Amino acid sequence: MTSTDKLPTRRENFSEWYNQIVQRAELADYAPVRGCMVVRPYGWALWENIQGALDRRFKATGHVNAAFPLLIPKSFLEKEKEHVEGFSPELAVVTIGGGETLEEPLIIRPTSETIIGHMYSKWIKSYRDLPVLINQWGNVVRWELRTRLFLRTLEFYWQEGHTAHATSEEAEAETRRMLDVYADFAINEAAVPVVSGLKSDKEKFAGAVRSYTIEAMMGDTRALQSGTSHFLGQNFAKAFDIQFLDWNNEMQYAWTTSWGLSTRFIGAVIMTHGDDQGLVLPPRLAPIQVVVIPIYKSDQEKSLVMESVERVRAELAGFRIKVDDRPEVTPGFKFNDWEMRGVPLRIEIGPKDVAKDSVALARRDIPGKAGKSFASQQNLAQQVAQILEDIHTSLHIRALAFRQANTYDPVDYPELVEAVTHGWAYAWWCESPECEAKVKDETKATTRCIPLDQPDRTGSCIVCGKPARRKVIFARAY
Amino acid sequence: MTSTDKLPTRRENFSEWYNQIVQRAELADYAPVRGCMVVRPYGWALWENIQGALDRRFKATGHVNAAFPLLIPKSFLEKEKEHVEGFSPELAVVTIGGGETLEEPLIIRPTSETIIGHMYSKWIKSYRDLPVLINQWGNVVRWELRTRLFLRTLEFYWQEGHTAHATSEEAEAETRRMLDVYADFAINEAAVPVVSGLKSDKEKFAGAVRSYTIEAMMGDTRALQSGTSHFLGQNFAKAFDIQFLDWNNEMQYAWTTSWGLSTRFIGAVIMTHGDDQGLVLPPRLAPIQVVVIPIYKSDQEKSLVMESVERVRAELAGFRIKVDDRPEVTPGFKFNDWEMRGVPLRIEIGPKDVAKDSVALARRDIPGKAGKSFASQQNLAQQVAQILEDIHTSLHIRALAFRQANTYDPVDYPELVEAVTHGWAYAWWCESPECEAKVKDETKATTRCIPLDQPDRTGSCIVCGKPARRKVIFARAY
Repeated sequence: MTSTDKLPTRRENFSEWYNQIVQRAELADYAPVRGCMVVRPYGWALWENIQGALDRRFKATGHVNAAFPLLIPKSFLEKEKEHVEGFSPELAVVTIGGGETLEEPLIIRPTSETIIGHMYSKWIKSYRDLPVLINQWGNVVRWELRTRLFLRTLEFYWQEGHTAHATSEEAEAETRRMLDVYADFAINEAAVPVVSGLKSDKEKFAGAVRSYTIEAMMGDTRALQSGTSHFLGQNFAKAFDIQFLDWNNEMQYAWTTSWGLSTRFIGAVIMTHGDDQGLVLPPRLAPIQVVVIPIYKSDQEKSLVMESVERVRAELAGFRIKVDDRPEVTPGFKFNDWEMRGVPLRIEIGPKDVAKDSVALARRDIPGKAGKSFASQQNLAQQVAQILEDIHTSLHIRALAFRQANTYDPVDYPELVEAVTHGWAYAWWCESPECEAKVKDETKATTRCIPLDQPDRTGSCIVCGKPARRKVIFARAY
Repeated sequence: MTSTDKLPTRRENFSEWYNQIVQRAELADYAPVRGCMVVRPYGWALWENIQGALDRRFKATGHVNAAFPLLIPKSFLEKEKEHVEGFSPELAVVTIGGGETLEEPLIIRPTSETIIGHMYSKWIKSYRDLPVLINQWGNVVRWELRTRLFLRTLEFYWQEGHTAHATSEEAEAETRRMLDVYADFAINEAAVPVVSGLKSDKEKFAGAVRSYTIEAMMGDTRALQSGTSHFLGQNFAKAFDIQFLDWNNEMQYAWTTSWGLSTRFIGAVIMTHGDDQGLVLPPRLAPIQVVVIPIYKSDQEKSLVMESVERVRAELAGFRIKVDDRPEVTPGFKFNDWEMRGVPLRIEIGPKDVAKDSVALARRDIPGKAGKSFASQQNLAQQVAQILEDIHTSLHIRALAFRQANTYDPVDYPELVEAVTHGWAYAWWCESPECEAKVKDETKATTRCIPLDQPDRTGSCIVCGKPARRKVIFARAY
């Protein structure tokens, strides 16, 4: 594969389109260990921008960061019954340390509820110590069998928030607050529209009382779980003895939550906005927001053009900007290259532009002539800011329209079966595991979430016809 | 241990003073796995400030961040002879994944030269791909036997830079540039004076041609290696086949470097500046730069005082500020508490201050009356900025004076032996491993570094009397 080979279109082979984009745009690469990835500088810069946008929101809602250990005694996982059942098959186990066989094997954290629960039981003594609102940025390992870059890898990067509260109500409010933070981030930073909802019991986190999720529709209409927030009740507090003296001087178990968003979200960004030319990055997260390409044919033109380029670079210093002045490739090559890498806005400056004191602009989100315009070099920063805002909005609107166009309201089971072959089905469900399992067995579609926004009425289950309180989204998912 | 127990003085028991400070100030705690630590929010906030200060410098010198995998095939380590000898005894080995015994055991990275070398051999094809200037923030695991929070833990956090270059000269320049970045960071952010120098062959990184270090003197006069930068020559390029086509279309092995600074540096900050009251944090890195303590005896006084406090909080919004308005503890308790936690500047506001439109200030670096003053509430931000600058400078000067007072220039071997019991010895050395080993065996002092700044003459080895080209620092070390 070289970068001159043609990218498959999304329609031809969405999966292969994705794999090639990730590698060609140098977002990530395969590591020598099966299922592990290397996040390359361009991909990591995108993750750093995601981190920044989330971290600001976490801190604004009173959270602080900390770091808990990578290695956890195996016995810890066994303290919460559902948790161990969920994670046991996926563990990486360290059995040798410093040349000796360990007395107790250690697992590499697949998630940190257990080790953090252990520490919280040490730190929390009184209601005055609550709430504890801690987040951690780090890596975890889950021994997945079928892996894909960003979407499912043995090691991945994420943040995991872990909070402890004095009351159930407060913990539930925190769970929902962080779900809202995720939705706000997805929509307002990544331009990825999401549906906020509740997971079914079958799909919830192992050890949670309730799990909430934000679900996004990818370009092939499959769903991608993009962030989750769990109300853990007193399950982990009881397993790890997190108790505190309450206002009446009585011992109580704390109520805990956990919530996480991972490098998987990069997959959501790629598959929501990308097109047949490659990546399309949302401006607020793009590592490079503006690429400037000088165009000239002679040394004389070059010096003229580069003078303008430097002025533009200075004027746009407030943006993440790159000037591509590589002498060894043509402007045409550069256009294609940066298009493939998803840079939101391209600025071209040639001798004619210099003469007119203008620049040529090309929006990544609108291919061809329709996305092109000219702008005066005067007040360029203001114009660029406006265009980047417009791109953000237009990406969001387009993705939302795509989701709406591909979300169906089936009236009977055959319509549901048909709908999930090419979209989401938003249907009444009686909430029985049997009906959920039947759909999954017969269509491969799972319940993605019971949206928080529900119609003001009840209905009949699309599968069994029994009364249904709420509608659910059925979809094939990543 | 409760926070009302008296802290041991540094003179009584420096080691116990350190251990208690780390835990009382809630910088870190022991994890349930031997030798592992939990970095608590206050400690992590300090690390985040260290990360920010370094990351800015890395990016300003053209580096980008990326993430390489945690798990490395065991065979990779064996490809560089000295590297495997250095790290084999310290490995954590994963032998089970997803319930099955692995065909090839995986090690948890103790450092990433091998896995990064493997990826570079894939990515680097031509001189046009060089230099590659990548840094990674992450965690590594080394199975240490004797551990201490921050100073030596099984898992620790760090950054590791890994660069590849077309020529030896360029790689050597990079190695020295990053050493300078570390020294600049230590001095200008942490107020920790350091000596930049070369490691002896015995003390260098396993696999390096040359290792450079910054060495700092702790409050008990021991040395702490605070950051290292390695010129790796073509050792790893040959082991991992990192070759490129040069300008003459000939294949060449690349020249590589690596450099790292870890959470160990937090230990350096604690042991350089701390006093018998606890932590003293350098203002540019302190998670809380200014703590405001309202003082009142009645509800009426309270509302008066809190009005001033809120005005001051707004005025000082550009600083990392905390208002301690806990009703359940006295101002005296708060003074001691924030002193112990090392906050550089305390502001007290009581009814008298309100009446005079002033505040009372207490500098953490100057205990007692001498560190106290009053300031008008007018232009408070400007005054606070100046005081924080003064504190930074005074911490640096004090630490430098302490190092100078405890660095000796022994004239003969008995003086050397005596000097290293209570300080550093800066002495001529013939650079033979035998003389180095003799000093270590007889005094426990090791060669810390051959300083880059050297006198304009030669001398005689302090141990064997033979001609010596350069002076070295001998010291007991952490």
